Amino acid sequence: MRPDRAPDIDAIRAAAERLTGHARRTPLLEADLLNEAAGRRVLVKAECLQRTGSFKFRGAWSRLSAMIEPERRRGVIAYSSGNHAQGVALAARLHGVPAVIVMPKDAPASKIANTRAYGAEVVLYDRAGGEDREAIGADLAERRGLTLVRPYDDPWVIAGQGTCGLEIAAQAATAGVERADVLVCCGGGGLTAGVALALEAEAPGLRARPVEPEGWDDVRRSLEAGERLANPPGAAPSICDAIVTPSPGALTFPAMAARCGPGLAVSDDEALAAMAVAFSRLKIVLEPGGAAALAGALFRRDAVEGDAVIVVASGGNVDPETFARALAA
Amino acid sequence: MRPDRAPDIDAIRAAAERLTGHARRTPLLEADLLNEAAGRRVLVKAECLQRTGSFKFRGAWSRLSAMIEPERRRGVIAYSSGNHAQGVALAARLHGVPAVIVMPKDAPASKIANTRAYGAEVVLYDRAGGEDREAIGADLAERRGLTLVRPYDDPWVIAGQGTCGLEIAAQAATAGVERADVLVCCGGGGLTAGVALALEAEAPGLRARPVEPEGWDDVRRSLEAGERLANPPGAAPSICDAIVTPSPGALTFPAMAARCGPGLAVSDDEALAAMAVAFSRLKIVLEPGGAAALAGALFRRDAVEGDAVIVVASGGNVDPETFARALAA
Repeated sequence: MRPDRAPDIDAIRAAAERLTGHARRTPLLEADLLNEAAGRRVLVKAECLQRTGSFKFRGAWSRLSAMIEPERRRGVIAYSSGNHAQGVALAARLHGVPAVIVMPKDAPASKIANTRAYGAEVVLYDRAGGEDREAIGADLAERRGLTLVRPYDDPWVIAGQGTCGLEIAAQAATAGVERADVLVCCGGGGLTAGVALALEAEAPGLRARPVEPEGWDDVRRSLEAGERLANPPGAAPSICDAIVTPSPGALTFPAMAARCGPGLAVSDDEALAAMAVAFSRLKIVLEPGGAAALAGALFRRDAVEGDAVIVVASGGNVDPETFARALAA
Repeated sequence: MRPDRAPDIDAIRAAAERLTGHARRTPLLEADLLNEAAGRRVLVKAECLQRTGSFKFRGAWSRLSAMIEPERRRGVIAYSSGNHAQGVALAARLHGVPAVIVMPKDAPASKIANTRAYGAEVVLYDRAGGEDREAIGADLAERRGLTLVRPYDDPWVIAGQGTCGLEIAAQAATAGVERADVLVCCGGGGLTAGVALALEAEAPGLRARPVEPEGWDDVRRSLEAGERLANPPGAAPSICDAIVTPSPGALTFPAMAARCGPGLAVSDDEALAAMAVAFSRLKIVLEPGGAAALAGALFRRDAVEGDAVIVVASGGNVDPETFARALAA
């Protein structure tokens, strides 16, 4: 695999083979009363039910399982506010590989605790105080010979996330859905690009579309402009911590630009409302960033065409306080 | 099928055929950090992800799909505090059958609202004020020629719930579990009896065991005594509304007595704590009565033997206030 390009469909299929028996084939859920509320069929790919509570385990397993032995012995390092952290931590432990995860001090407490529980060494940094995670990580990586596992700009990681798209293609066909938009919660674009690549090959009537938080819709604007744009400095923070990223990836952007439909942006309040709907109608736990795509289906109805929409509910790692806030809204 | 006996395995298999394409094959979930907390593998059959949010849709569909045409035209009636109500309401609507559901006024608000949303006519009664639901229902049934759909003492209903056991047998084998206790949230015993019958035929190394709320453990005591015992009058109310019943059923008790292991009883606080664990580890929404079996796995560890335990998480129809209470505990 060329490290400077998004993977092709064969690489995604190879990742699916490596993931078999290790990652979960998550269900594609549907609820009668949710369909009524949304005005069309809503099929929800419940990646919150994936190991470690988000799709990130797919990419992490794909990357770790493709590493060569001397690299494995030395270990891996990752930067993450939480979901990639947990995915890498568990995938590393299961491979017997030491893992160091560099996390911001203000990440959700449960994400930090779980990353430690999966056996990783967690190094906290203060992003408000201006500490540079790249410098902290580069120093550690060099001293200990650790391999960096990037959150999205890595073809093995994108291939792992693409296995979610292979499953969607098969499950949508079983559900009788051949043409639909597939709304994907989008940060750096690893999941969106992977899903788009898989759908292009296996379900060409399904079209991936990124959904981001308002103010952090760099992918939406980049797709519109045809070039990678960053978010303006000083944008208000979003509750959707899992999908707040500065700009589309160098590998993920071209993959998305060639395949995705227009992006959508949703507000924090809409993400919280979607969490409450997932609670009452689907009986699944979503975090704000994992509910963005469902919020798109619920609150951007006119921007979506067709009798059915598919939603990737990408993660469920949320603190009880934030979840209670969503239920009380 | 003889109406005065529990079904045999052929009747359960026939129900599974009628349910195919209508009920969901719910996933058997597992979480690495839950296994660690419980000290053994915990496989969770997530019936909260079933249509209408509980296993009750299985029995309702089984019953409705076996009705003859003149009965269907006149309609059905059911008594229920909520989960059977929703299951019957949706199964009836999908069959084009009118449904009347007699519900207590103090049932969870979401259960009443959902039953109406599924198209049923809801008749509320005041159980604290001494109104007799049997009298209300019998009067309506006679005047309108409605067929009563019993919540558990009906062989078609038990056969429908037994389809959950067929799935567990297959899914446990895939997960590599051949010998284990299967803890089942238990009210009148329809689910427990159905699961026990299915396991006896398809996975004899798996043994069903009922789990009930403390003070409402009539099935546990009845299994111990070898005869049907009722709960003492004036027992303190339990938060586990879905599984509070006066005594084991006439059909379900012999089926359970011949096949089940000893019962367990859990407190309301333990059920709430299990809901919080399901939230944080499994990312599923459980109601108190649907979390009783998981509470058994977590808080009665010494009463369960073996390297693995299977838990039926029977329902997730819970009001936001009660869920927030579980998260805050």
